[in-house]
Amino acid sequence: MLSVEEARERVLARFHPLEAEQAPLTEALGRVLAEDALARESSPPFTNSAMDGYALRSADTRAASEQAPVRLRLVGEVAAGSVYADEAQPGEAIRILTGAPLPAGADAALQQELTEVADGWVTIRQPVAPGTNVRHAGEDVRPGALLARAGVELGPAEIALLASLGVSPVRVRRRPRVAILATGDELVAPGEPLKPGQIYNSNSPYLIAAVARAGATPVALGAAPDRADALREKLAQAQGHDLILTSGGVSVGDYDLVKQMLGEQGEMEFWRVRIRPGKPLAFGFLGETPLLGLPGNPVSAAVTFELFGRPAIRRMLGAARVERPSITVTLAGEEQRRADRRQFVRVRLASDDGQLVAHTTGAQDSHLISSLQGATALLIVPEGEGVIRPGEKAQALLLNDALPWLE
Amino acid sequence: MLSVEEARERVLARFHPLEAEQAPLTEALGRVLAEDALARESSPPFTNSAMDGYALRSADTRAASEQAPVRLRLVGEVAAGSVYADEAQPGEAIRILTGAPLPAGADAALQQELTEVADGWVTIRQPVAPGTNVRHAGEDVRPGALLARAGVELGPAEIALLASLGVSPVRVRRRPRVAILATGDELVAPGEPLKPGQIYNSNSPYLIAAVARAGATPVALGAAPDRADALREKLAQAQGHDLILTSGGVSVGDYDLVKQMLGEQGEMEFWRVRIRPGKPLAFGFLGETPLLGLPGNPVSAAVTFELFGRPAIRRMLGAARVERPSITVTLAGEEQRRADRRQFVRVRLASDDGQLVAHTTGAQDSHLISSLQGATALLIVPEGEGVIRPGEKAQALLLNDALPWLE
Repeated sequence: MLSVEEARERVLARFHPLEAEQAPLTEALGRVLAEDALARESSPPFTNSAMDGYALRSADTRAASEQAPVRLRLVGEVAAGSVYADEAQPGEAIRILTGAPLPAGADAALQQELTEVADGWVTIRQPVAPGTNVRHAGEDVRPGALLARAGVELGPAEIALLASLGVSPVRVRRRPRVAILATGDELVAPGEPLKPGQIYNSNSPYLIAAVARAGATPVALGAAPDRADALREKLAQAQGHDLILTSGGVSVGDYDLVKQMLGEQGEMEFWRVRIRPGKPLAFGFLGETPLLGLPGNPVSAAVTFELFGRPAIRRMLGAARVERPSITVTLAGEEQRRADRRQFVRVRLASDDGQLVAHTTGAQDSHLISSLQGATALLIVPEGEGVIRPGEKAQALLLNDALPWLE
Repeated sequence: MLSVEEARERVLARFHPLEAEQAPLTEALGRVLAEDALARESSPPFTNSAMDGYALRSADTRAASEQAPVRLRLVGEVAAGSVYADEAQPGEAIRILTGAPLPAGADAALQQELTEVADGWVTIRQPVAPGTNVRHAGEDVRPGALLARAGVELGPAEIALLASLGVSPVRVRRRPRVAILATGDELVAPGEPLKPGQIYNSNSPYLIAAVARAGATPVALGAAPDRADALREKLAQAQGHDLILTSGGVSVGDYDLVKQMLGEQGEMEFWRVRIRPGKPLAFGFLGETPLLGLPGNPVSAAVTFELFGRPAIRRMLGAARVERPSITVTLAGEEQRRADRRQFVRVRLASDDGQLVAHTTGAQDSHLISSLQGATALLIVPEGEGVIRPGEKAQALLLNDALPWLE
């Protein structure tokens, strides 16, 4: 039996980033950068005022006081989006609005609340330091600065930064197209009536949602019955996608045909992995198309997708980080270790005075789909003897798309 | 000036869940349930075998041992998806595959590895306890059980659970349509050339992404120049949406026209809120359409969208929780409190031996859009005197879509 690391390495070795393509920035949410994004301009692009007020030469105000105010001649106005055509001369003030370029010659902007204006003159009752209310060109970002590295997933904040430097379109990786196929005579699509002996296909809806959350495009192929000809036909449809995910048909039963197909049509590796839930996992190629055969039990399918399928998708997306972030948590309950299996326990994290505490989501049998509900992390119980006690610490994988920055 | 709570209450009081609609389960990812989802069936729907092996009557095996094995007559087979037509009689065994219904009369299934089969007889060398390898009907979920409450956002796990009980389509809330309009003569769309005095419009791309992440449908209306007629025309296009989000034009400047439009065309409330970044916030109605006027500074726009816009969208979605989860974190650096402002500091959370530690993302000026990068939380620095020191604890809002269950 393979360890989780060995199995994952052998899967990941066979996936590579897909080709890059252009996307307008406003359609790039959730896409992964194919190349470093560098600033082409400064931000802000020009020195400007942080306030509504009056642009002036600070030297003119050096002697200003309540007793001896300085009066500057109001010679013009500059609003955001326009440029003051002249240079500010000694003794002059220019009305300036927030974000407007500071006129040449001026080196400060006094907010309007601190001045009086009448008959074309601005009265100043205190010295204004050079740079007051001035935002300098390039203060935020300088040209050539690295805005975001290749491999970064674009969220709203990254999009705002790239937008502010005018970077659009962006080079991103193509989204992988992932074919999803459940296997089993017993499967019926949700919404259809159930006959005796039949159950609903929950793996396909799960995988469609999980593949989309991972950043790929799911292609639903329904369920194939346990007949070689029917499965062969479905797999023929699936060829040419970037990945085929199947569920069921990889155990040792007489009707476990997925591994038989892989053996028949291409390269096949069939593993048992030291993992619970999970264990049987088929991986291989149908022609050029990689196929990951997940177990049929819904919880096993979900956990093995997390550990093997999602990283393969993230690798194809060119993501800098293909795995979920791992964090230290404190156990609320007791966990029994097993010598021959690494266990991934579905837990709900709660925040207790700064500690993240892991509570199991209930009974953890691999067919108990209710154990997935409310899970925010997978608690890792390493192979070994004895128990991990309440209050002890362990690592957990955050089942969480939006914490890529947690270290 | 209003407190953050007062301003939020006054905004939220004006939003209500939108109407419900049907969605196929496989298209319901990220949608919010409009009504409780109840189990219509049991899960599993029938008692079945957890293993490939032989269904039998456990009483037949009571005396079995290595020395005196029991031989059962192999009378048939039942695979997943089919039903054994007869009742298992004393002395009989039926070949059974994982997931197949346990035949009437049988009360256990012995895995095939523990038996020998030859010439139509199954040899049993140990007693088999009643219930061995049997999954009982309703063991996971019973009919009428609450699967997910109204207000739950459907993720892959919830979709799997509903699918396993055949629940499709589902009743979900309509996604709000949110019109997004930036204002300012100085704004240019990313990708276009920049003339002197102009800057890129980053608020629209940010809000388009953030609105989509909040679960609504963004409708981009570009940027309006600082002229009343042009703004009036854009706002006319925006009417009829579920919400209009503007950025800019709500301060005290001569060209801050959004508040003027609200005053002219409908009900208007114009606030200063005790918040940093942020402060000016306009809220009102253009006819029947609510309008939230965010500040123009990119960081102020982002933070006020988080605190006021996103909760309004979540309320329209009928989400049980409209606000981000708040957790206790430990400060890595020092934060200066301010008597008159609640501060929301952009921080990156790191996990340090089970503690979540908050590191600021750098300089926090409201025009420094780089401070949004890598932020996974908003650290709340309450109004008050003095400083919060490194190692002290504070609350933070997780900027994170996928931890709705963190308590």
